[in-house]
Amino acid sequence: MGSITVLRMGHRRGRDDRISTHVGLTARQFGADRIVYSGEKDSKMLESLRDLCERWGGDFDVVYREDWRTVIKDFDSVKIHLTMYGLPFQDHLDDVQSDLDADGDMLVIVGGEKIPKDVYDLVDHNLAVGHQPHSEVGALAVFLHDFFDGDELGQKFEGADITVVPQEQGKKTERPG
Amino acid sequence: MGSITVLRMGHRRGRDDRISTHVGLTARQFGADRIVYSGEKDSKMLESLRDLCERWGGDFDVVYREDWRTVIKDFDSVKIHLTMYGLPFQDHLDDVQSDLDADGDMLVIVGGEKIPKDVYDLVDHNLAVGHQPHSEVGALAVFLHDFFDGDELGQKFEGADITVVPQEQGKKTERPG
Repeated sequence: MGSITVLRMGHRRGRDDRISTHVGLTARQFGADRIVYSGEKDSKMLESLRDLCERWGGDFDVVYREDWRTVIKDFDSVKIHLTMYGLPFQDHLDDVQSDLDADGDMLVIVGGEKIPKDVYDLVDHNLAVGHQPHSEVGALAVFLHDFFDGDELGQKFEGADITVVPQEQGKKTERPG
Repeated sequence: MGSITVLRMGHRRGRDDRISTHVGLTARQFGADRIVYSGEKDSKMLESLRDLCERWGGDFDVVYREDWRTVIKDFDSVKIHLTMYGLPFQDHLDDVQSDLDADGDMLVIVGGEKIPKDVYDLVDHNLAVGHQPHSEVGALAVFLHDFFDGDELGQKFEGADITVVPQEQGKKTERPG
């Protein structure tokens, strides 16, 4: 298995900061290796996301690239665009798996409301996690969760300053090391 | 199978409108029957979500209740709180299923950043979809998707003004009826 990059397109400062942060954290929780933001550069959002990732451990990368077309065109392995207009993802996960050789990398693209038309043509698969309007956060979570068959929930985040100690009730955290 | 209600706690006008809308739409896409918002009443957000649900069909209900404690206390079937501090949901879905009798209803509670402590004690299960900070939208999507074992993606939304015609590339919709 290679690495997974999530590209979050069309970020707008202010209006999108929380959704974009949720996209980044969801990518991290569900097994992606990095997130690339395009759209407006939002240093405050990027820094606060990096700080949070640093605190909770692991090697998740947060980067910004102004030109999303170059990100897609330069990516030389499997490119997936998650869109409600695409084919049902659950019927095509096997195709995706067979497109990825043993060390193939995957780019997973999620957008905001307006996606430029050429994105549909620049990717290998346009896949829908349901055909109703909902959320790029929900779509990304379910896509990665099914892609990994739930195994991503067992990943370790090394070097964390803080970790959760799961409880039946209440909240408990600890500081490892 | 009874009905599924999602309770989204602690909504704040302005700051939360997009995340709260995504929670509602995600609940709808992944098989819930209704969403209850508490926190600040946000008529604009509620109306715009209702309009969207009306246009895309189905019977999803959007309601507001000021007092979330009453919503939880008055609910007399299985209550789940999704929280990163809870037990791993994937190990406890069977418990949830066996708590639900043939027509048992389920309440699924998701919060924002600050959840009052007594929520943990008012529910039957505090369950985590991963123990890293991410998103109530992603957590809700994955929880419901696994609860239904993916069958929710086959649901029909009757009476829609518009539906997607899935495509390998591009966007296509039609107006049924």
